Amino acid sequence: MTGHVLGIVGATGAVGQKILKVIDERVKNIKALRLFASARSAGEKIAFRGRLIEVEDLEKASFNGIDYAFFSAGTEVSEKYAKRAVEQGAIVIDNTNAFRMHPDVPLIVPEVNFHAIKKHHKLIANPNCSTIQMICAIAPIHRVNPIKRIVVSTYQSVSGTGTEAIEALKSQSAQMLNDENPTVSVYPHAIAFNLIPQIDVFLPESGLYREEEKMVNETCKILESKIAVCPTTVRVPVFYGHSETVNIELTNEMSLAEVQNLLNKAEDVVLVDDPANSGYPTPLEIQDKDEVFVGRLRRDMTLPCGYNMWVVADNLRRGAATNAVKIYCKMCKMTENCK
Amino acid sequence: MTGHVLGIVGATGAVGQKILKVIDERVKNIKALRLFASARSAGEKIAFRGRLIEVEDLEKASFNGIDYAFFSAGTEVSEKYAKRAVEQGAIVIDNTNAFRMHPDVPLIVPEVNFHAIKKHHKLIANPNCSTIQMICAIAPIHRVNPIKRIVVSTYQSVSGTGTEAIEALKSQSAQMLNDENPTVSVYPHAIAFNLIPQIDVFLPESGLYREEEKMVNETCKILESKIAVCPTTVRVPVFYGHSETVNIELTNEMSLAEVQNLLNKAEDVVLVDDPANSGYPTPLEIQDKDEVFVGRLRRDMTLPCGYNMWVVADNLRRGAATNAVKIYCKMCKMTENCK
Repeated sequence: MTGHVLGIVGATGAVGQKILKVIDERVKNIKALRLFASARSAGEKIAFRGRLIEVEDLEKASFNGIDYAFFSAGTEVSEKYAKRAVEQGAIVIDNTNAFRMHPDVPLIVPEVNFHAIKKHHKLIANPNCSTIQMICAIAPIHRVNPIKRIVVSTYQSVSGTGTEAIEALKSQSAQMLNDENPTVSVYPHAIAFNLIPQIDVFLPESGLYREEEKMVNETCKILESKIAVCPTTVRVPVFYGHSETVNIELTNEMSLAEVQNLLNKAEDVVLVDDPANSGYPTPLEIQDKDEVFVGRLRRDMTLPCGYNMWVVADNLRRGAATNAVKIYCKMCKMTENCK
Repeated sequence: MTGHVLGIVGATGAVGQKILKVIDERVKNIKALRLFASARSAGEKIAFRGRLIEVEDLEKASFNGIDYAFFSAGTEVSEKYAKRAVEQGAIVIDNTNAFRMHPDVPLIVPEVNFHAIKKHHKLIANPNCSTIQMICAIAPIHRVNPIKRIVVSTYQSVSGTGTEAIEALKSQSAQMLNDENPTVSVYPHAIAFNLIPQIDVFLPESGLYREEEKMVNETCKILESKIAVCPTTVRVPVFYGHSETVNIELTNEMSLAEVQNLLNKAEDVVLVDDPANSGYPTPLEIQDKDEVFVGRLRRDMTLPCGYNMWVVADNLRRGAATNAVKIYCKMCKMTENCK
């Protein structure tokens, strides 16, 4: 049987489930698929291509025989088990923050910096979701006209936190529609009909939350550039899809038509930009898509080389699962085996 | 009987109702209160201080005898009736976009530029809600250390659109929680669990929506400065309260402690800024307050004189009704009559 033995760690989580779906859509032949989760979920059976696959207890499992393992069960799990998987022979594509900034771990957006994968030691990192979609939208411009500075504000959906946050938004919303006080859980404040300008833990030295620091550091690593990134990351009451207002300052003047042309030609970037007719991407409307959607592309009148854009992508797919599976497809050069 | 004869045009709308409430809270003596609306709402009776006041049909009504009239029934209504009110003897405090940029109409945030009211010709404009709260947060800094450039992204609640938008968010949210497709109304896209990067009509020349242009022009007029404002305005699924990420570039370097000190001393600005303990303002938690709340105040590491902040205010009160009633209170110097 052709293909590889693939493993998914965190198979029952929001991203793990999407990885399973994207593998099903994109990878033609698979020798075997193994699913891992915590002891709590072990024994569950998950359907894949007409078979039921039993979820294995990660703590007790061996990675012997696995060619590629996708990790998406949180930073602590990757810290604890990813190196063991590598030692047992697997190539790990890690979706957590555990190794992204390690100098010998490539941090890959396949359309942008796949060349950097050459240096891998069987461990490859998938960037943070809010970084991936921004990078996809700006890299085609940056390649031609280097970006000096970015001011980005995010509007991030709760699915980035996980299934428990999706449930919290649902139940809090129902409570508030019934004039009840929302039961605060998962986040430090209610998220239903509210906004939370905090994602991840506080870092006193920079005054940033960790999600913001990720955008600063990962952008520089992926673009191999000392680009200045000034982010504010905000959780919004949306289930799926992250959105961002991105203000960029280019090195040289460039016409709006040229910038539009660069984005139109870019791989997997879709320009939805007809503001006179309310044409722009919204998170609800791009759900389950694999592309990065850009709208509101316009000159920033306050800078000679400034542009603004509105960038939206499905955070679980484009921002996580699809990015990881695309890394796999490009790595094994199985283009005939992958869509 | 002491006090003035006051009128509210658009008395049955979201802002009109808040003006009534803020007058009740802040103005001690009122000689008489008259309420106006369209023919559709005329005849309705609204309770105020133990009496029922009948809503008059604006088209047929006279403003004779009215000392101060608050207009908040939309730009077209103000364009049609505000000058008639002035001719009939009233001083008009207009909450719409009709006259804000007219050179002989003062555009007033009472805490910031009340001196500009001297030049009024019985017509005073209340700024746009998203401008007011940003101005309150930045003016205390700008006075000491002029701001050169602002990049602002807004997160604006549906109540800014009116009561029909509040109903649309409620009904669409209920539909989606029941796995039904949302019925799109009021806005060009669904707003429940979604984001709409469009507020008001498109202006092809600048590539901005009108809400964005308002922030650009009104900021310069109020601060009497050629400050460069780069805005993106976004509607979010929140009922009450607008939020903004505000990035400012100052002329001179200034320590974070100095900036904090300026905001701590500013009238009606409240610093809620304890990020290590998830302390920052959220729209749900500042509802019905009159102050402007600032959190996430921090250096922008990408600029020598840059700062970031998160600014939240109740758009119907601080961004509209309270601003208008405060203008009235300051104008008639009835401090003993107003709280």
